[in-house]
Amino acid sequence: MNKLYVVGIGPGNRENMTLSAVNALKDSNIIIGYDTYIDLIKDLIIDKEIVSNGMRKEVDRCKEAIVLASKGNTVSVVSSGDAGVYGMAGLILEIISKEYSLSEFDVQVIPGVTAGNSSAAILGAPLMHDYVTISLSDWLTKWETIENRLHCAGKGDFIVVLYNPKSKSRTEYIKKTQEILLNYKSPQTPVGIVKSAFRDDQNSQITTLKQMVDCDIDMFSTVIIGNSNTFVDGEYIITPRGYSI
Amino acid sequence: MNKLYVVGIGPGNRENMTLSAVNALKDSNIIIGYDTYIDLIKDLIIDKEIVSNGMRKEVDRCKEAIVLASKGNTVSVVSSGDAGVYGMAGLILEIISKEYSLSEFDVQVIPGVTAGNSSAAILGAPLMHDYVTISLSDWLTKWETIENRLHCAGKGDFIVVLYNPKSKSRTEYIKKTQEILLNYKSPQTPVGIVKSAFRDDQNSQITTLKQMVDCDIDMFSTVIIGNSNTFVDGEYIITPRGYSI
Repeated sequence: MNKLYVVGIGPGNRENMTLSAVNALKDSNIIIGYDTYIDLIKDLIIDKEIVSNGMRKEVDRCKEAIVLASKGNTVSVVSSGDAGVYGMAGLILEIISKEYSLSEFDVQVIPGVTAGNSSAAILGAPLMHDYVTISLSDWLTKWETIENRLHCAGKGDFIVVLYNPKSKSRTEYIKKTQEILLNYKSPQTPVGIVKSAFRDDQNSQITTLKQMVDCDIDMFSTVIIGNSNTFVDGEYIITPRGYSI
Repeated sequence: MNKLYVVGIGPGNRENMTLSAVNALKDSNIIIGYDTYIDLIKDLIIDKEIVSNGMRKEVDRCKEAIVLASKGNTVSVVSSGDAGVYGMAGLILEIISKEYSLSEFDVQVIPGVTAGNSSAAILGAPLMHDYVTISLSDWLTKWETIENRLHCAGKGDFIVVLYNPKSKSRTEYIKKTQEILLNYKSPQTPVGIVKSAFRDDQNSQITTLKQMVDCDIDMFSTVIIGNSNTFVDGEYIITPRGYSI
C-alpha cells in the first residue's frame, strides 16, 4: 500500500512533538515540507531524502508527495502545529480524492499541538471556555466570509484565536478585526500575542483589545482575544471555566 | 520556588503525548488527577506518589495540588487532551490568583493534543478551516449561553467541534443542537463522531447532521460537524481550505 503520513510537528521544538510524529518521520524515506518547517526538524531527518520548497507551493508539494508515495516510497508531509488545522492533511486527501482513489493509499494524519494551544499555554489559560479559530488571511477565503465570522465570534462571546493576523501585504485586517470585535467586547478585553511559540525567538505580549493594534504582530504571531470573563493577573491571562472556588 | 505543572497528556496513549508532558511527569514527585486519566499514564508514574479522585472533584483536586506544591513538592496535575482547553490549567491559576499570589509559584502549562484534533485526525481532515469549539455541558455554563453560541456557529458557517455532547443525565442537548444548526446547515452536512480517540476502545462513525442523533454518542465522544464545503469520500471527512487543485 502507498503510505503517506501527514505529520503535525507541533510548535517546532522536539519537546512539544508527539512520539507518533517522531515515529512517522523515522518510518519514512522521504520528507516533504516548507523550508522553515524542514529546518525545525533537521536533526530528526538527517538520513532522509528531503524535498523542501517555499511558501504558497502547497499544491505542488502535496502532488509531488502523492506521486512519490505511489512509486512505493513512504512519505511524510510535514505541517507545523496540527496537520489538520490550516495544514496539509486536507490538501493531500482532496488531491487523492480528485485525481486518484483514497482506497489506493494508506494516509495517516498525525495530530499535533496547534499554534493556538501552544500560545495559550505560554499565556496561562486563556482558552478555558468555548472558542473560535479564525485565519485572517484572504488568500484562500473571501474577506466578507472572514468578516461575517468575526461578527459571529463577537456575538457569541467566544474567545477568539487569530491565525495569520498580519503579513507584509496584509496590515489592515487586524485593525478591521479590532473594529468589529469592539462592537461586542469591552476595549479592556485581555489579548495575548505570541510569536514563534516554543522556538528560540519566542516572544509574548499581554495587552488589551483597545491596544493590540499598536503591538508587534506579524505572520509568525498568534493572537488570542478573551471572552467577557477573561482576566489578567501578572504574566497570566486566565479565562474562568465557571467553577465556584 | 513552588513548582506546579499542569500537564495535557493528549488523547491517552503514549504515542500522542509530547516529550514535554513525559518530562514534566518525570520531574514531579506527586501526580494528581481524575482516576481515568491517572490510569491512562500509570506505566509512566510507577515511582510517584499518586493522588486521584473522581469526577466533579476538580476544585478539591486543584486546591490539594497547590497546598502540596507550597510544601516544597513538585506536582503535576494531569488533564486529558490539552490542559488549557476545558482542563485544569485555568482552575489552578484562578485558585492561586484568588487565594495565594501567582508570583509565589512557578506554574508551567504543558500543552497537548486536544480531543478535537485527535478526533479530526482519525476522521481525515474535517478541521481544515475556521472552527468553533463548544462544550454542551450546562454544569458550569447556562444553556442559554450555549444555545446562543450554537446559533452564532451556524450563522458563521463554522466547522463545529462539540465536547461533552451527551451524558446519562443530559440526553436532549445534542437534539437541540441539531435543531439549531439545521437552521443554517444542510441536513446532509457531514458529521464525524469519535469515541475514545487513540484508546483501546476507539470507535468512529461518519454520518450527517440529519442522522447524527440516531448514532451512538456518549460522554467520551467528540462530535465534529462540517461547514458548507465539507465532503465525505469513503472513510474520510474532508473540508477544503480553498486551494485550486
